[in-house]
Amino acid sequence: MARGRLITFEGPEGGGKSTQAGMLIGRLEERGLEVVYTREPGGTKLGEAIRGILQYNTAGEAPCAESEVLLFEASRAQLVRQVMLPALERGAWVVCDRFFDSTTAYQGFGRGFPVEMMETLNQFAVGDAVPDLTILLDINVSLGMQRCAKRQAGHKQQYDRIESEALEFHEKVRQGYLELARRHPQRFRKVDGMRDVEAIAADVWKVVSDVFFAEG
Amino acid sequence: MARGRLITFEGPEGGGKSTQAGMLIGRLEERGLEVVYTREPGGTKLGEAIRGILQYNTAGEAPCAESEVLLFEASRAQLVRQVMLPALERGAWVVCDRFFDSTTAYQGFGRGFPVEMMETLNQFAVGDAVPDLTILLDINVSLGMQRCAKRQAGHKQQYDRIESEALEFHEKVRQGYLELARRHPQRFRKVDGMRDVEAIAADVWKVVSDVFFAEG
Repeated sequence: MARGRLITFEGPEGGGKSTQAGMLIGRLEERGLEVVYTREPGGTKLGEAIRGILQYNTAGEAPCAESEVLLFEASRAQLVRQVMLPALERGAWVVCDRFFDSTTAYQGFGRGFPVEMMETLNQFAVGDAVPDLTILLDINVSLGMQRCAKRQAGHKQQYDRIESEALEFHEKVRQGYLELARRHPQRFRKVDGMRDVEAIAADVWKVVSDVFFAEG
Repeated sequence: MARGRLITFEGPEGGGKSTQAGMLIGRLEERGLEVVYTREPGGTKLGEAIRGILQYNTAGEAPCAESEVLLFEASRAQLVRQVMLPALERGAWVVCDRFFDSTTAYQGFGRGFPVEMMETLNQFAVGDAVPDLTILLDINVSLGMQRCAKRQAGHKQQYDRIESEALEFHEKVRQGYLELARRHPQRFRKVDGMRDVEAIAADVWKVVSDVFFAEG
């Protein structure tokens, strides 16, 4: 049995990662493939317990920035070994709504931790669970945040309250993702996430077909 | 106000770390110093929640080896920023019953994770909370495990049940500590932990006096 494939969706808020992951899974399943979907943090009992800590429910006090990164990585390490690697080994495909590039983009490029340190932590956490394909759903920050605000409250007001500091942070994250795509051209494919759902899905499917089914 | 001092006790099981830490704290307090004692994992609400996960109470499933390391580091990062650095900054002395060298010795040298990776994780977790002095209470493995077994059950039987695999592991840990002491001669001082409590305490105090009070 051939090892399955690992596809990750990455990008700033509002680019449609969850929607596109769901649509891609449908198309892969139509081809008769077993597909496993993951979303961080969580996906294992241990990860859910860690998610509780990250959301301050369990501990009653906020983790420091370093603890936050390490807790994300701990949840990720467990997800990889308990869910992802076993799935890949039995030939299933794994589709992730965010994976380790999110840590590099958000905590490294966005928050200012050394990018190389984030990559080292990622490497320790995931071992050889490196994506065969990472789809970067790129979207400009104002549009992305507008979409998020709409989704959250259905009102433009919420977006208006987002301070410029947050916009700056998300701009750094976006630029970080673009930089990662340049550094890892083998596995990264950029898809324009600023169009409607169907147009994006068509591009995503084109990329997936090119990468995995071109010979088939 | 001068920054306080950070002293860590390290070494294999049974060398008397907790006992010696307690005795040292008494002598430092007699000199009028404020002393903060820490023991890993835990020491913060977040750390206690993580300790629960490590002991499988919260999650109901065992963390993989990588998650375990990352959870220890997350607890450590929080302890450093919430307890240790504030204490050091107000001039208090901090005495730790185990700190980051334990990860290098147990997970690196003992369990076989790359030692450099363990040191990198430690560095991220603790930032500039590097010990001014690390007292390595060295003890040979059989004596150390005998002492532990006695403490735990008051019986020789328990020691007899310890498999040779465990002895091998603890021997690697011991050799790892000795290697760390060679690599970091500036902050490490080795004390023979195979003697009685008072003899060890006298040596510990001599080391602490030499390092910190020689000029005073």
